[in-house]
Amino acid sequence: MIDRLRTEVFQANVDLVRYSLVTLTWGNVSGIDRSSRCVVIKPSGVEYESMTANDMVVVDMDGNVIDGQLRPSSDTPTHLQLYQAFPSIGGIVHTHSIYATMFAQACREIPCLGTTHADHFNGPVPVTRFLTAREVEGDYERETGKVIVERFSDLDEEVIPGVLVAGHAPVAWGKNASDAVKNSLILERIAQIAIGSLQLNPEVPELPAHILRKHFQRKHGPKAYYGQKGQKD
Amino acid sequence: MIDRLRTEVFQANVDLVRYSLVTLTWGNVSGIDRSSRCVVIKPSGVEYESMTANDMVVVDMDGNVIDGQLRPSSDTPTHLQLYQAFPSIGGIVHTHSIYATMFAQACREIPCLGTTHADHFNGPVPVTRFLTAREVEGDYERETGKVIVERFSDLDEEVIPGVLVAGHAPVAWGKNASDAVKNSLILERIAQIAIGSLQLNPEVPELPAHILRKHFQRKHGPKAYYGQKGQKD
Amino acid sequence: MIDRLRTEVFQANVDLVRYSLVTLTWGNVSGIDRSSRCVVIKPSGVEYESMTANDMVVVDMDGNVIDGQLRPSSDTPTHLQLYQAFPSIGGIVHTHSIYATMFAQACREIPCLGTTHADHFNGPVPVTRFLTAREVEGDYERETGKVIVERFSDLDEEVIPGVLVAGHAPVAWGKNASDAVKNSLILERIAQIAIGSLQLNPEVPELPAHILRKHFQRKHGPKAYYGQKGQKD
Amino acid sequence: MIDRLRTEVFQANVDLVRYSLVTLTWGNVSGIDRSSRCVVIKPSGVEYESMTANDMVVVDMDGNVIDGQLRPSSDTPTHLQLYQAFPSIGGIVHTHSIYATMFAQACREIPCLGTTHADHFNGPVPVTRFLTAREVEGDYERETGKVIVERFSDLDEEVIPGVLVAGHAPVAWGKNASDAVKNSLILERIAQIAIGSLQLNPEVPELPAHILRKHFQRKHGPKAYYGQKGQKD
Repeated sequence: MIDRLRTEVFQANVDLVRYSLVTLTWGNVSGIDRSSRCVVIKPSGVEYESMTANDMVVVDMDGNVIDGQLRPSSDTPTHLQLYQAFPSIGGIVHTHSIYATMFAQACREIPCLGTTHADHFNGPVPVTRFLTAREVEGDYERETGKVIVERFSDLDEEVIPGVLVAGHAPVAWGKNASDAVKNSLILERIAQIAIGSLQLNPEVPELPAHILRKHFQRKHGPKAYYGQKGQKD
Repeated sequence: MIDRLRTEVFQANVDLVRYSLVTLTWGNVSGIDRSSRCVVIKPSGVEYESMTANDMVVVDMDGNVIDGQLRPSSDTPTHLQLYQAFPSIGGIVHTHSIYATMFAQACREIPCLGTTHADHFNGPVPVTRFLTAREVEGDYERETGKVIVERFSDLDEEVIPGVLVAGHAPVAWGKNASDAVKNSLILERIAQIAIGSLQLNPEVPELPAHILRKHFQRKHGPKAYYGQKGQKD
Repeated sequence: MIDRLRTEVFQANVDLVRYSLVTLTWGNVSGIDRSSRCVVIKPSGVEYESMTANDMVVVDMDGNVIDGQLRPSSDTPTHLQLYQAFPSIGGIVHTHSIYATMFAQACREIPCLGTTHADHFNGPVPVTRFLTAREVEGDYERETGKVIVERFSDLDEEVIPGVLVAGHAPVAWGKNASDAVKNSLILERIAQIAIGSLQLNPEVPELPAHILRKHFQRKHGPKAYYGQKGQKD
Repeated sequence: MIDRLRTEVFQANVDLVRYSLVTLTWGNVSGIDRSSRCVVIKPSGVEYESMTANDMVVVDMDGNVIDGQLRPSSDTPTHLQLYQAFPSIGGIVHTHSIYATMFAQACREIPCLGTTHADHFNGPVPVTRFLTAREVEGDYERETGKVIVERFSDLDEEVIPGVLVAGHAPVAWGKNASDAVKNSLILERIAQIAIGSLQLNPEVPELPAHILRKHFQRKHGPKAYYGQKGQKD
């Protein structure tokens, strides 16, 4: 089980490069095995070109290394916080992808301006608040996770699979590592398209609610009819 | 005949990837055989990397699957509506290409600002209205086709080979699947160039009518002299 | 001699693709042999992927085909006009490259905002006027050449190796076909950088004259010291 | 020793192309051997495609060629000036990378708007003043180095590993040639992200000081915990 997860998480990390979502080592993917409560995550600061599946690190829910020679990503406590708070998710991706990071730095949510967005995010992509000095000086990466969870107190992480951390960058998630990478890519694309739409029309209205609802349901609702039978995305 | 069309439509779908017009599975191409009234279209939600010509789905004008193992694209009713209303077209492409989608989301037509545009679109690229709640709750994809046809009530689809669906994305067409892909790529490029021209000069005037007319005729009129003899684009 | 020129012009056309300066068939390169007064140019509307050196067309200064099976580029009369008016140039490139075309459509010259520009263009990249209805209805492509020459009545084509045709796209030239392609690429890059600088600072001043002069002279003046001995760019 | 440096500097120059930081020959990397006071640098105006490690030029601190058949980069005196003034650096990169050059031309520093920036630059990326006419007419490239050093009179080059030369382009440095290339790439990315954030929110505040400090220390401080043990970036 852990071996399969290790391979999945490794492949998902490689896909970040394939989709041009990372520069240097700025990004990481993890996946969780809910039954054994083990998380597999990218090692810290290792280059994608030389990374192998065996470099993936296995940690428990307290962040102790269970298996692996390398240090886990320094963002591991953020991932663990999210796995704890969001029981339905199976994979998490953090990148500094260009366009989503533009919004995170501008402290602006990404409004839902079209069906590309509505197909995958059931509403605006939210932004967290800045961490306080106390949070930053404490267990910083863990507090980052907490601030994300706080932002979702009145949002549903199952239909809004990502967030912008203010002054930082995006975090996306999904039912597994590969799904989280897809949501990370989608977040980047909708950010890029939104910035252009806002430039063309600074007063652009959000997508009418009936179209937003329809598109999200078409792909994700109980009566979803997009894709092949049994396929869920 | 259908076999040739299947190969053509498959190749045209692959070209969407080659021209960087699609992300993940966001796009589809179809082609029609007018004599047998059969349409070949991409299957729904299948990844481009693993797709083969045999995965293409053949449907009749009512959307019934005639041949193929997979579900046709969920946008099939939109394509059928357009084939019915626009008898001269032989191929249709729908993508969420970045720059054209920026305009679609901003609900702004793409003005004709230069000869790159005028060479292929004989006037601005129009935007549809939003679909109403009733249309969205009804036969959504079919209604999308109808809204496009409504927008063309006073436009000529033979000289304006594409449209922006408000809050959604572009649809382009052509005399066959390959020609539709070219128009889809052209639409993307003229959108990208227009957004830059509008940034440099928000009051930029449209291309003078005499230049627009000249360029379109040079490539598409009865006395077209661009390209090699017998070549029609 | 013509065989060597044919190979050079073919290679220069291929380089347009390598430098991502063309979409589909939107671009052409020519080169001239001044002694025999023969011009080698890309054929009209032929795809770059399938093009060979033998497809290049040889024309005389009146545009008559001297050698070659295909029609020459429809822009041939523009090229011939420039070769006649600018006796020192040996190669010409016309593209619809994205950023330079943004400026051409906006009818804005590219101001000299930095040394990247000053290294290659000794002042702003000028824009022509629009062609009149009469010019468009007459010998259009030849008139395009004349409008460029008119714009250079008080400019020196040896130190400003390119121009923006209003509402159309850039034309660049150089001492041979390969040099013209380089200037075409440079024009595209300085347009891209300028649009960003103008966004960051709409009141950005032009580069001080003493720096502009220094940089242009450093690469192109009689005491040029950039590059290796005997190298002239 | 010099052989190893030659290989390192060659590889670093090749990496500029891999990271899309250079157009044509617009860029150069050098590295220094502090013990022998030798600097290895790219030759002037040589194309990256045909360059080999043997083409690298070895110069002494006065710019005299010690080894190599070719002329060193015309920017050599700028590099030497920086090696003299900044004793802790081991490699220098100069490019005209697109987004950083946009800021240099706009004469705007890159504000620290997020953690991507704070991870690597401990504050805004500064801009120099323009060189005076006298400086330009004198030993221009050497004066360029001096103007950079002047700008750093109250800045620490160890925590701000790069600068924008007004009206020109970026210069970055690092503990060796490869590290300098990484800082050059980082500078380009943070410029690109910043221009988008400024577009989305022209009044965007700088990253709170406590987050800036935390991020820089996390990767570079005495208690850095990013990356693997013994790894220093």
